[in-house]
Amino acid sequence: MAERIKVTLDEQDIPRQWYNIAADLPKPLPPPIKPDGSPVTPEDLAPVFPMNIIEQEVSTQRWIDIPEPVLEKLLIWRPTPLYRARALERALNTPARIYYKNEGVSPAGSHKPNTAVPQVYYNKVFGIRRLTTETGAGQWGSALAFACRLFGLACRVYMVRISFDQKPFRKMMMQTWGAECLPSPNPSTKTGRAILEKDPDTPGSLGIAISEAIEDCVTSPDTRYSLGSVLNHVCLHQTIIGLEAKRQMEKFGEYPDVVIGCAGGGSNFAGISFPFVCDRIHGRDVRVVAAEPAACPRMTMAPYVYDSGDVAMMTPLLPMYSLGHTFVPPPIHAGGLRYHGMAPLVCHLRRLGLIEAVALPQLECYEGAVLWARTEGFIPAPETSHAIAAAIREANRAAEEGREKVILLNWSGHGLMDLTGYDAFLNGRLQNYLMTEDEMRRSLAAIEGLPKPPPL
Amino acid sequence: MAERIKVTLDEQDIPRQWYNIAADLPKPLPPPIKPDGSPVTPEDLAPVFPMNIIEQEVSTQRWIDIPEPVLEKLLIWRPTPLYRARALERALNTPARIYYKNEGVSPAGSHKPNTAVPQVYYNKVFGIRRLTTETGAGQWGSALAFACRLFGLACRVYMVRISFDQKPFRKMMMQTWGAECLPSPNPSTKTGRAILEKDPDTPGSLGIAISEAIEDCVTSPDTRYSLGSVLNHVCLHQTIIGLEAKRQMEKFGEYPDVVIGCAGGGSNFAGISFPFVCDRIHGRDVRVVAAEPAACPRMTMAPYVYDSGDVAMMTPLLPMYSLGHTFVPPPIHAGGLRYHGMAPLVCHLRRLGLIEAVALPQLECYEGAVLWARTEGFIPAPETSHAIAAAIREANRAAEEGREKVILLNWSGHGLMDLTGYDAFLNGRLQNYLMTEDEMRRSLAAIEGLPKPPPL
Repeated sequence: MAERIKVTLDEQDIPRQWYNIAADLPKPLPPPIKPDGSPVTPEDLAPVFPMNIIEQEVSTQRWIDIPEPVLEKLLIWRPTPLYRARALERALNTPARIYYKNEGVSPAGSHKPNTAVPQVYYNKVFGIRRLTTETGAGQWGSALAFACRLFGLACRVYMVRISFDQKPFRKMMMQTWGAECLPSPNPSTKTGRAILEKDPDTPGSLGIAISEAIEDCVTSPDTRYSLGSVLNHVCLHQTIIGLEAKRQMEKFGEYPDVVIGCAGGGSNFAGISFPFVCDRIHGRDVRVVAAEPAACPRMTMAPYVYDSGDVAMMTPLLPMYSLGHTFVPPPIHAGGLRYHGMAPLVCHLRRLGLIEAVALPQLECYEGAVLWARTEGFIPAPETSHAIAAAIREANRAAEEGREKVILLNWSGHGLMDLTGYDAFLNGRLQNYLMTEDEMRRSLAAIEGLPKPPPL
Repeated sequence: MAERIKVTLDEQDIPRQWYNIAADLPKPLPPPIKPDGSPVTPEDLAPVFPMNIIEQEVSTQRWIDIPEPVLEKLLIWRPTPLYRARALERALNTPARIYYKNEGVSPAGSHKPNTAVPQVYYNKVFGIRRLTTETGAGQWGSALAFACRLFGLACRVYMVRISFDQKPFRKMMMQTWGAECLPSPNPSTKTGRAILEKDPDTPGSLGIAISEAIEDCVTSPDTRYSLGSVLNHVCLHQTIIGLEAKRQMEKFGEYPDVVIGCAGGGSNFAGISFPFVCDRIHGRDVRVVAAEPAACPRMTMAPYVYDSGDVAMMTPLLPMYSLGHTFVPPPIHAGGLRYHGMAPLVCHLRRLGLIEAVALPQLECYEGAVLWARTEGFIPAPETSHAIAAAIREANRAAEEGREKVILLNWSGHGLMDLTGYDAFLNGRLQNYLMTEDEMRRSLAAIEGLPKPPPL
């Protein structure tokens, strides 16, 4: 029989609790604040999030039970398989052993439903009947649409207009699951009307879509807003990835030397890595690497500041490595990594020296993704290709140094809805976007007057 | 803990042999013949298929070993999970228990790689270095592209031109896996040039594409042709689906009362059902139902005849229920079911009364598919929706009769590359196509002079 290439846990072995890294931080995370420097209170957040989620957002309890109705829905695609990428190893001629956690097997095709399902559940329990959110390329919007349908909540997604027009397939997914998907800006909101009056042909932006989703939420009955990354409770829900991966690595008889995830808002990276960062905090020798695009080099180049999560500054100020909330990322195909900031928990770990970060140019990522498809078979999402490219760098270094190394990466989603990027790459129509320090200085001008985080 | 919804076999439990139903047929399958009535010999087929595959095509050995290198590649996505569709059952309020085998988890998104992988392997072992094939909407072409890359064979796919232009994503998949994908008709073949001279704007057809792929094969060095359905060896390779499903049903403590698969060329239906038909032949009480589109009602309406597999009559004559090889199926979205004939083995079982067939109109299928997506989560391929609609009919009948029933269906692929059909359905732009007996008579005129199969 061929050598084992994957470990699939039985349903009975799905983790029953999420891991909350807030319980193990050597120094506490600076809290979110308002622009005047005063702390954000749970009451401030209540119009936007249900109180049970707000409590989870600030919890420092190490293990948090996954509610039974959430488990039942997660079982639709979880536990996800963990693979050894033997064919890739052979192609690289490396002594490294490369493992990957396949989060592309969910109905929406990525890790996003891991948090969409519990978020919808908590809203439902709190009496909420309708959720609003924004989406760029559509990964998050489709995950929330899927989860809302499972629990019978209504769902409206504001989708950045240029994506709505150019990439209609994610919109069709959302509609198939029964959600409303509107182009943003949209005449149904005050914000949208004002913008359309000034500029009827605007392509829209994530900042505008967030503003519209929040406006819709706070002006509608029984409605709350849902966010697919960045916040603590989102990172918490994603830890099921790393918890499963740990058990699966054990079944392979392995423990990783290095754990890698791509980082956009930070949630899939948090998901694979936090359970291993926990080990590191407690003295275990494991490196943890966040792979970000060279076009959005936050943890590799940007300063640690208080900044808003959106362009219109509707969110509280969060402590994070940020390129400035007015920064417009270059049009790389990894839409899910085009963000100016990063989950405060992930940034805090970086500041504490518990994780590393690496910035990867687009062409190297696509080169890795094509090699992956041609060896391992599955076609990765453009976001995932950043984790792949970082893993290939690690494997090549192991080959140069002639030593064994165990690499674990999070394969955050498949690329079947993003094939135009491959087409552009294979036909020589893609380029790299590298941020210069000068561009960085200019993009940071927007946050000059804001409060600064306390020293460590 | 929630009730179990799926059984995932360990890698170690993957079947090591395919099941060959030819060994158990109560009466032998009539052989393929030439238009003059003489039998087709292995030598006749040798320019098109390698001899090891031809031997498999005519084998009557009950169990055929799956070669180790094939197993190794099948493990990329196999064993596939078997689910109980509890959420769908609840929505239908049925006493039936519905199980489904999820073949959508392969890299190409359907059951097609189950035969692409062994076909490429056998060609490689035989010394072949390049394969040609045709594809309609692209499911088969992408599966063969994937498999060729795994074994290092070159691959050229002739894709019906209208699909090539209108549905570029499957083409991009093939190219990502390193295959050449050409629009058909194509100026690189004699057939293609002749057709383009007469009609430069032709949309192409599957019949033309088959002719081009075979011409390319017989005029090129070290090249053979590969077919994704219909033939005996293709059905054989797909039986891994049913063999796994049997073991998984056992783990649920169940045996099906009825087994359902959609039927285009017949291979996925054969895959799920032949191991159960074997039980039926040996006296077990199990019904087996093939679900075909009402727009292509072969086993429900057409006569059992000798007919060619393609429009240009380049293939041998095969004994099958056929609408006539010049029949142009209506533009239903289930492109994989738009075929005039059907696998001879499947047709033979129908003729022997060992299986049933049901014809389903397009709108009922999409209704079932949307209900499926909104309960079970995964979005089905339009082909798969025929099996779903047939299963829903069975479940509703069980509800009317107030009795338990165990239903097993083959969920042959996901619909993420076919969302435009859902869009059309949800926006009221789809219609039914039902074949009338008068249309049937006209479409059958093309085969009037051909030899007739012997009586049973």
